[in-house]
Amino acid sequence: MNWPYYIQKRDGTLWLTEAESGHLRLDWKLKEVLHVERSPFQEIAIVDTETFGKALVLDGVVQTTVGDEFIYNEMISHIPLALHRGPERVLVIGGGDGGAVRECLKYPSVERVDLVEIDERVTAACVRYLPELAGFLEDPRVRLQFEDGVEYVQRVEAEYDVVIVDSSDPVGPATLLFEGAFYQRVKRALRPNGIMVCQSESPLFYLPVLRNTHQALKELFPVTRTYWASVPTYPGALWTFTLGCLTDPFADRTWSHRIQDGTTRYVTAAVAEASFALPAFVRRALGVSE
Amino acid sequence: MNWPYYIQKRDGTLWLTEAESGHLRLDWKLKEVLHVERSPFQEIAIVDTETFGKALVLDGVVQTTVGDEFIYNEMISHIPLALHRGPERVLVIGGGDGGAVRECLKYPSVERVDLVEIDERVTAACVRYLPELAGFLEDPRVRLQFEDGVEYVQRVEAEYDVVIVDSSDPVGPATLLFEGAFYQRVKRALRPNGIMVCQSESPLFYLPVLRNTHQALKELFPVTRTYWASVPTYPGALWTFTLGCLTDPFADRTWSHRIQDGTTRYVTAAVAEASFALPAFVRRALGVSE
Repeated sequence: MNWPYYIQKRDGTLWLTEAESGHLRLDWKLKEVLHVERSPFQEIAIVDTETFGKALVLDGVVQTTVGDEFIYNEMISHIPLALHRGPERVLVIGGGDGGAVRECLKYPSVERVDLVEIDERVTAACVRYLPELAGFLEDPRVRLQFEDGVEYVQRVEAEYDVVIVDSSDPVGPATLLFEGAFYQRVKRALRPNGIMVCQSESPLFYLPVLRNTHQALKELFPVTRTYWASVPTYPGALWTFTLGCLTDPFADRTWSHRIQDGTTRYVTAAVAEASFALPAFVRRALGVSE
Repeated sequence: MNWPYYIQKRDGTLWLTEAESGHLRLDWKLKEVLHVERSPFQEIAIVDTETFGKALVLDGVVQTTVGDEFIYNEMISHIPLALHRGPERVLVIGGGDGGAVRECLKYPSVERVDLVEIDERVTAACVRYLPELAGFLEDPRVRLQFEDGVEYVQRVEAEYDVVIVDSSDPVGPATLLFEGAFYQRVKRALRPNGIMVCQSESPLFYLPVLRNTHQALKELFPVTRTYWASVPTYPGALWTFTLGCLTDPFADRTWSHRIQDGTTRYVTAAVAEASFALPAFVRRALGVSE
């Protein structure tokens, strides 16, 4: 088989070399390469790593692994869903692996989850190889739409209680998902009391992205808050998410008790509240108080 | 110059290859190698990385970098010092780089910090190349002792308010620092209301180490608590610390206000309290409630 350049056999063993940056590389020992294809948008690979099991890799960058995906997917989903008093309609943009959708389905009030993924082939590969994540896309409450999220949100108005922007890094197909014009459309897609969340990268490696995202949401929403989790497979690990809220969901001090933590491996009510305690250097960079 | 096997020149560039495990390797692009020596205990290297600046490397494992050391050093020091109502005497075992000592000196009540490091050459290299950390060892309140921490604590009784076990991984010279017999000696070295803390590894990569440490301290101390931080340079990043306390310092609900957070880059009062919110899978593994 012809491996992509980032997968090499050395001393009889397969290794995936991931460039975290030009200066830092992560070498994953592989049990096997399950799938490689080039879609119209990117190169998709599914590999089985020794460290964290099966992983989705896009253009050589590890997006998610079955071993640690629970941290990212729980944190991007449970926080906005618990903050909202009774989310019925949820939109997930990106997240074609289905991990965030799986978490959203745990909330009894949720009637519909729309997943808008630009690359149908990503979801097809995940359905086939990563049923731990994508297996939940068959739930009758889920509607799949393969389309550019930027175009999709231009057509919807006051439709969703929660919008989750589960994008890859701001390069390639996801670039537009980090721009103010897109967030403005997302805001319009929200129903009253609606909440949006986006992954806002690592403050150690991509502080300008976090700062711009926080600023862009702050200009649009009455309440903007950044929270964080430790995601082992992402560079810097200390990973942020930023919320834009049409009303103040934190006014209800008991919000974290709505976390569905009987079903989780990372988030609990206490972890949810703790995730808003930003490290001092992040607080200062964003100009927010404790 | 003859580099150690884990430093190689490729395409005209120096790279340090760190084995996080047999299955995961981190490749650090280097600006230069500042120092390499073999001490009676280990191979010591000081390198300058593109990502996090200068770093101390022991036997090929990155111990600390000037770019992210603040997270680990603040969290292993400020938490026990703030929990103690007025620590005067502090013992740091290991931590020859001086980073934890620097943080301890920020507490006005501290009169003396004893640093017991097994390898004098580590401290000598850090004094020369990492003054950001080791520069504070010249403070008149600091006393240096180059000796095996296990032997040192056998000689002291009721001497310290806080003992910080700042060890490397439980391989090589640090192995004995993870055993119950050692913790028993540490307990004896504490004054009334004394607190000990040790780094207890990553629950993702070394869960048995964390579980054993937690269990060993629980058998010795009336109050044992694990807390965590996200340390980018350590495998899994989600890193734990475990406290053993002779009395209950958490009974004072205002303990976190004693955090000296005007001087910090990671820890704040809120971060300190949040660090005790353990991820669900860690809580379950340790059998502790929220």
